[in-house]
Amino acid sequence: MALSKKPVTGMKDILPAEMQIRDYVIGVIKDTYGKFGFTSIETPCVENIANLSNKQGGENEKLIFKILKRGEKLNLDTAETESDLVDGGLRYDLTVPLVRFYSNNAASLPSPFKALQMGNVWRADRPQRGRYRQFMQCDIDILGEASNLAEIELILATTTTIGRLGFRNFQIRINDRRILKAMAAYAGFAEESYDSVFITLDKMDKIGRDGVKEELEKEGYDPAVCKKYMDLFEAVETAEDGVACIKERLTDYLDEEVLASFIEIIESVRATKEDTFELVFDPTLVRGMSYYTGTIFEIAMPEFGGTACGGGGRYDEMVGKFTGQNVPACGFSIGFERIVLLLMEKGFQVPTQPEKVAYLIEKGVSGEELCNVIAKAKEERDTGRQVLVARMNKNKKFQKEQLTAEGYTEFKEFYKNPLKV
Amino acid sequence: MALSKKPVTGMKDILPAEMQIRDYVIGVIKDTYGKFGFTSIETPCVENIANLSNKQGGENEKLIFKILKRGEKLNLDTAETESDLVDGGLRYDLTVPLVRFYSNNAASLPSPFKALQMGNVWRADRPQRGRYRQFMQCDIDILGEASNLAEIELILATTTTIGRLGFRNFQIRINDRRILKAMAAYAGFAEESYDSVFITLDKMDKIGRDGVKEELEKEGYDPAVCKKYMDLFEAVETAEDGVACIKERLTDYLDEEVLASFIEIIESVRATKEDTFELVFDPTLVRGMSYYTGTIFEIAMPEFGGTACGGGGRYDEMVGKFTGQNVPACGFSIGFERIVLLLMEKGFQVPTQPEKVAYLIEKGVSGEELCNVIAKAKEERDTGRQVLVARMNKNKKFQKEQLTAEGYTEFKEFYKNPLKV
Repeated sequence: MALSKKPVTGMKDILPAEMQIRDYVIGVIKDTYGKFGFTSIETPCVENIANLSNKQGGENEKLIFKILKRGEKLNLDTAETESDLVDGGLRYDLTVPLVRFYSNNAASLPSPFKALQMGNVWRADRPQRGRYRQFMQCDIDILGEASNLAEIELILATTTTIGRLGFRNFQIRINDRRILKAMAAYAGFAEESYDSVFITLDKMDKIGRDGVKEELEKEGYDPAVCKKYMDLFEAVETAEDGVACIKERLTDYLDEEVLASFIEIIESVRATKEDTFELVFDPTLVRGMSYYTGTIFEIAMPEFGGTACGGGGRYDEMVGKFTGQNVPACGFSIGFERIVLLLMEKGFQVPTQPEKVAYLIEKGVSGEELCNVIAKAKEERDTGRQVLVARMNKNKKFQKEQLTAEGYTEFKEFYKNPLKV
Repeated sequence: MALSKKPVTGMKDILPAEMQIRDYVIGVIKDTYGKFGFTSIETPCVENIANLSNKQGGENEKLIFKILKRGEKLNLDTAETESDLVDGGLRYDLTVPLVRFYSNNAASLPSPFKALQMGNVWRADRPQRGRYRQFMQCDIDILGEASNLAEIELILATTTTIGRLGFRNFQIRINDRRILKAMAAYAGFAEESYDSVFITLDKMDKIGRDGVKEELEKEGYDPAVCKKYMDLFEAVETAEDGVACIKERLTDYLDEEVLASFIEIIESVRATKEDTFELVFDPTLVRGMSYYTGTIFEIAMPEFGGTACGGGGRYDEMVGKFTGQNVPACGFSIGFERIVLLLMEKGFQVPTQPEKVAYLIEKGVSGEELCNVIAKAKEERDTGRQVLVARMNKNKKFQKEQLTAEGYTEFKEFYKNPLKV
């Protein structure tokens, strides 16, 4: 079999220049989330296939990289379907593994438990520019906190991190699955059609209110209901205070406490936040995952034309799928790869790098002379400098140009015959 | 399908206490290797199955987690063997991916290229205590450096790192595949039997010289040859200077330059090293991987009864398998998981942690009062402290005990009715 130099389809090699930025971003994330009391955990990249196929992951469940059974458990002759052949899969997100982790380890974890996860996930998506089949996710989650303190802390921690990475003028869009449902109920949709209605609603930013209305009608919904629905969105979006407008119109459809808590999240974040971002109520925000039960939110970056660059929400019923007993849970995921991409495009330079010195040693230098050069390098490293020790190439000029491009600012040359210097 | 709370067989969840140590070790490794001019890179966890099955990985190739083809490429009806079903696999080490990476990206990389890789690898080994099917590897490699500067730098960088992690009295054992071969040739073994002889020799630390001799004889080798072989080991091991003994006896079997370079490595490291470790010539060191072509080395920790806790060597012919043109290459891998295990067992405490304060907020605190508490937390975080903001549990005493165990040393309580304080 021929060996392939390329990475597998849809995955990528990460070169030193990008790694430096990734490591920097990881450092800022860990430091900032740490200050908010989040502690790092890690789960295996492989999960039992049953856990990954539990209908919580929506479309992602169709994109799983599945792992072949091994040894006696693999029987090609009797295997009839794919599921006879596989026992595991690469995780497609960090939420399902987190919930399994929590269910498995709750007794050894504090309550509430504030988790930080940074790790790769895999999705066998159609490869496209800037989107890979292996990518890093970075999630914070709070388990065991029923109050809106979870949402407030998650939003403040995430926005502080994004701000420390130098981003400005971004938006956090916030909504609640229960507001979404109340709006659909108010318009007159039947409960069983909500999911389908929301899939169409999710296109609002692309096709606008008229487009959504038209599509809903095409799907066979009562034009009067569709009109009432779109009129409500228009009223909320043009109102000076969208939430107040919701409160006034949906009194009969929405629990008062739900809205009071929602307002408290918005007010607390606005009162505390730095002026790096805006928090806006977005009644059209849907979030695809079927596991959300309450508040949902998204980061929108102007650099990405307002596309989501992270998001999250409350999923109070997922732990129950593992343990039979629900635990309040809420999480926020940063779009790590997009942030790195933006920083690369900006030509971002990692701050506070050590001074970089290159020692170039002529081929003949050996024995005691070589020992002396290496000892000298040790001394310099001990003072905090970065010292590259390398043999001098034939084309020394080119070698130094290359090293200069890598950030080496000082060169020391060592010759067999010192008179050559 | 029922959901499983346990991780998949042989893999483990990593809890906050261990993660803190892992993150610390990763930090020390990255910082120290950085000072030596190594730059981080990353490759995908999945590799083409052909690359993983190229006979370079020895026994590890039997332990691959294989990934099922997807979509149209997967045809259960026509599949006859396992290889019809899979197109990728999880990497079992970081060396094969590095060589593929280098072959793919050499034009954009400096020469020599000094790479640092930290990443998970997977082996479907029989699960056993302290050994997992997913584990972190941490490798440094120098590609494009033919001289022994590569070995010297790799050994100094690795031992400096291990020393900074607080380990003392460890050993670096060093040997050369060419010395191994010369010793076998001197004794009278035929070249085609070397690999099999070395597999037996590798048991020396367990069964001793007599055991090895007996086993070799059982395998049918000429007793006179076996005796000459073991006598040579005895002579080398009891000599005051083992390398000088090799030099004297193997003049006709070993290239003079090979030995001169080997001696230079030993002398340069000894001249520069700190007194945290010893560098010893170990003529019985074999290293299993078939890709090694020259120097080989291992770290032995007294805490592990002298078992290897990392190792590496020169593999000058592996890039050629991808590109048709060999490139000198040499690498050193640290046993990351073992080091973490040792630190955990020692009760190691991560230095320089921020002060940890917990804010406990009574359930009724909301609105403006809540905003004030959150603003106060923000202020404290801005000063560098770690602030956990949580709702007060019903059993406040237990909550505080738990937080104390997590390292929170200060508590601030916030009540709806401040008179309660």
